[in-house]
Amino acid sequence: MGKVHEGNSDVKDKKTEFSLVRVKSTWKSKLGKINKDAVDCVSAAKIYKSITDRGTSWTVVSPITFTYKVTETYGLLDPSNDTLLLGHITDPQQLEDIKTSNKPIRRFVVIDQEVFQIYGAKLTEYLEANDVVYKILALPTTEENKSMETALKILDDVNNFALDRRTEPIIAIGGGVCLDIVGLAASLYRRRTPYIRVPTTLLSYIDASVGAKTGVNFANCKNKLGAYIPPAAAFLDLSFIQTVPRRHISNGLAEMLKMALMKHRGLFELLEEHGCMLLDTKFQVDNTLYGHSSIKAASQSTCIAITTMLEELAPNLWEDDLNRLVDFGHLISPALEMKVLPSLLHGEAVNIDMSYMVYVSHESGLLTEEEKQRIISCMVGLELPVWHEEFTMELIQKSLQDRLKHSGGLVRMPLPAGLGQADIFNNTSFDILHRAYIKWSEELSVSSDSTCDV
Amino acid sequence: MGKVHEGNSDVKDKKTEFSLVRVKSTWKSKLGKINKDAVDCVSAAKIYKSITDRGTSWTVVSPITFTYKVTETYGLLDPSNDTLLLGHITDPQQLEDIKTSNKPIRRFVVIDQEVFQIYGAKLTEYLEANDVVYKILALPTTEENKSMETALKILDDVNNFALDRRTEPIIAIGGGVCLDIVGLAASLYRRRTPYIRVPTTLLSYIDASVGAKTGVNFANCKNKLGAYIPPAAAFLDLSFIQTVPRRHISNGLAEMLKMALMKHRGLFELLEEHGCMLLDTKFQVDNTLYGHSSIKAASQSTCIAITTMLEELAPNLWEDDLNRLVDFGHLISPALEMKVLPSLLHGEAVNIDMSYMVYVSHESGLLTEEEKQRIISCMVGLELPVWHEEFTMELIQKSLQDRLKHSGGLVRMPLPAGLGQADIFNNTSFDILHRAYIKWSEELSVSSDSTCDV
Ligand SMILES: NC(=O)c1ccc[n+]([C@@H]2O[C@H](COP(=O)([O-])OP(=O)(O)OC[C@H]3O[C@@H](n4cnc5c(N)ncnc54)[C@H](O)[C@@H]3O)[C@@H](O)[C@H]2O)c1
Ligand SMILES: NC(=O)c1ccc[n+]([C@@H]2O[C@H](COP(=O)([O-])OP(=O)(O)OC[C@H]3O[C@@H](n4cnc5c(N)ncnc54)[C@H](O)[C@@H]3O)[C@@H](O)[C@H]2O)c1
Ligand SMILES: [Zn+2]
Ligand SMILES: [Zn+2]
Repeated sequence: MGKVHEGNSDVKDKKTEFSLVRVKSTWKSKLGKINKDAVDCVSAAKIYKSITDRGTSWTVVSPITFTYKVTETYGLLDPSNDTLLLGHITDPQQLEDIKTSNKPIRRFVVIDQEVFQIYGAKLTEYLEANDVVYKILALPTTEENKSMETALKILDDVNNFALDRRTEPIIAIGGGVCLDIVGLAASLYRRRTPYIRVPTTLLSYIDASVGAKTGVNFANCKNKLGAYIPPAAAFLDLSFIQTVPRRHISNGLAEMLKMALMKHRGLFELLEEHGCMLLDTKFQVDNTLYGHSSIKAASQSTCIAITTMLEELAPNLWEDDLNRLVDFGHLISPALEMKVLPSLLHGEAVNIDMSYMVYVSHESGLLTEEEKQRIISCMVGLELPVWHEEFTMELIQKSLQDRLKHSGGLVRMPLPAGLGQADIFNNTSFDILHRAYIKWSEELSVSSDSTCDV
Repeated sequence: MGKVHEGNSDVKDKKTEFSLVRVKSTWKSKLGKINKDAVDCVSAAKIYKSITDRGTSWTVVSPITFTYKVTETYGLLDPSNDTLLLGHITDPQQLEDIKTSNKPIRRFVVIDQEVFQIYGAKLTEYLEANDVVYKILALPTTEENKSMETALKILDDVNNFALDRRTEPIIAIGGGVCLDIVGLAASLYRRRTPYIRVPTTLLSYIDASVGAKTGVNFANCKNKLGAYIPPAAAFLDLSFIQTVPRRHISNGLAEMLKMALMKHRGLFELLEEHGCMLLDTKFQVDNTLYGHSSIKAASQSTCIAITTMLEELAPNLWEDDLNRLVDFGHLISPALEMKVLPSLLHGEAVNIDMSYMVYVSHESGLLTEEEKQRIISCMVGLELPVWHEEFTMELIQKSLQDRLKHSGGLVRMPLPAGLGQADIFNNTSFDILHRAYIKWSEELSVSSDSTCDV
């Protein structure tokens, strides 16, 4: 008599557990202990059968393993670097076969139009130099075009290219919008075609590239349609960031600060100390003003941000666990972002949310006055807004009520508890929320436009 | 030094393996052996990190477990039967909470228009009697409308219904077309919303309901866009089949015969003996002409068909293994089906393909003349076409070449080897394919319109 693992068992049914073993080409269900010598293969999947007076019921439990690579590298578009074309291949034999074959490599590339204007020539040169048969589709992948329509446009072209789903991953190059749309299109094509992410903004470098989420906006809602399918690989090259506008660097730093506050005091201190420099140097290595320390801060901070993000995402790739530290800054901000669209960037809205939550932590006795001050100063140093007049008590309450509804009746509020540590709370009183709101408004509504002038 | 399991290891890299453990709300990556007493939870996911001279690379290995239920039942639309509303819930506590709560249940239902004409009144009565707050969307879910457009239309209405993704599965009632479109729409909504399949044709009862595949046609290709997301549950009630046209019963029997030929001699003999009766009674229980034996044959055959299908699908839910017995009859038939559209139903095209393959088996020495004859007679008894003039040697070759390309360079041809047994072959010569074709044409081109008259 078996039990479906993970507590999914219906206690009243009498369920019989079957393993699945392969004998030649056939899978057979087997009761009880398996003699592993007599079979070719035992599956990790199980079938549970129960017979009741109303009929027969089968419960299928089938694990699917996602494997993907996130690689920080440089010189991605150097013609001699084959990472972009072959870096996703993990089977050495397959790699060898491709390298020794004389069939040209075929690739379909979708790239953000603005990015194409800056890097298009280099990309074309790279593909030509490597004898790739390619099609480059440059699209205005803006938030307004982040739609199923754009995904279908991509799919039309993919189909005309006669893409081979087994060996020709679709390559996406751009910010989070581009990566999200292409990821969804690839996930849909022939029920799953591998794709590769090349982020070109700081935000997508440390956030959108690391996880499994894809999506498009629908019916006026952000990312309402999508899938959880990770890329075959994400190839990260900081040199793209050099052309990102300063405000968009701050935007990415907000998500980095999130990981720092939730999980990593060292990263917080790094941002506190070197935030301004990171903004000035745009994470570039060869900066004459700052020299070696700029390389170090840039590579350390991205490496820590990615590591901490992966720690939270890998065990919860499909977000089945609703207790998520990575939701910090994302409880009230979506409503704010949509309300004032397009005046705030995503990271800016997130930062305003985090700034308020720091006050909630302080009111709850989780942060000292000094810690609170340090965090707010750091935010200001990163040139991020810490207050917004549309972030009202009403908006807070409405958002938290919505969240209650969508997360199984608990609010699951991540809050910093000390620097670089956090926990999830369900019982923060209205009183605390309100007192935090008053203090936050009093202390920050004036300073909201300070920046770190250089 | 770790190795990515499943042979995914890049042997040249030096990879460090990290486990992921949860301490309070935070996931931390840990090197080496874990002291399970000191942590709340160890994840099945792993992260492998390697540092090379070109940068840092993380490989994420993350298993996602799909759990779903396939239930054969009866009286699904009896107001006293709560299977349709609550049968997908596996947690007894949750079930109890819902039953004792006085909040009405909310459900969004998509139903095939023709099915709605027959069963709409009963469905409405059922929902009313159970105080369900509902929206029924009746759509012409035909092969021509099996498109992303229809999926988006459904999603619009789902969104207007303000569906709660956590507790309100979308219910699909209809043939394979309806179930496939709704499955895709649900998979996309908020990156995954549970859905329930209620098949109303024999084909969808034993095939489309059992697995994880969803999809729509795109750019003139069948199921070119889709996802592998199983339903929360499939609820199967044979009584829907009573109104299915006779030709569509044959259509479903073709897929049942496929499972019989590949895996189950008993099912083959059952179809051989009782095929005509199953067509006459349409799998119904209370048939005065045939009495008890009709119930038995109907319930036995569907139960075996589902069991054998699940055995093949559960270990290979995402079709990563390209060696699939369930592909039998599906190597040449897609091209035939599209070529003569709409003159052949899916199962009919599949049967013509199977009939030819039986000759290939015979020529290969895998089936005796007598076994071959028995199989063809059984097909004729099921009123399925066994030959088609558009099924040419050219079509065969083109399809097999296509398959070579899309299945990693091997043709992976499932062939019966004895009654109810099969294997997968890669080296069938052109000579055998050709001789089989000649014999098949000679012997069957005349008999192709025989039927089992009653
Ligand atoms: N999938 C995920 O897990 C995830 C995570 C976070 C954010 N996102 C999504 O990402 C999107 C935001 O991403 P974003 O901030 O990268 O926005 P974005 O993609 O809109 O890019 C911002 C702007 O920068 C331009 N740009 C991009 N790269 C450039 C470069 N190298 N030089 C100069 N200009 C460049 C773009 O053309 C665009 O105008 C949102 O839609 C959000 O939902 C997804
Ligand atoms: N997802 C899968 O694994 C899977 C497997 C097999 C087939 N399919 C798909 O299923 C589709 C074929 O399914 P189908 O054969 O059920 O076709 P269908 O959905 O087109 O239904 C056939 C016809 O029967 C009518 N009908 C349905 N139920 C009826 C009832 N109870 N009484 C009277 N009429 C009824 C429908 O209106 C339709 O006209 C194809 O698109 C195929 O790709 C999917
Ligand atoms: Zn974010
Ligand atoms: Zn089929």
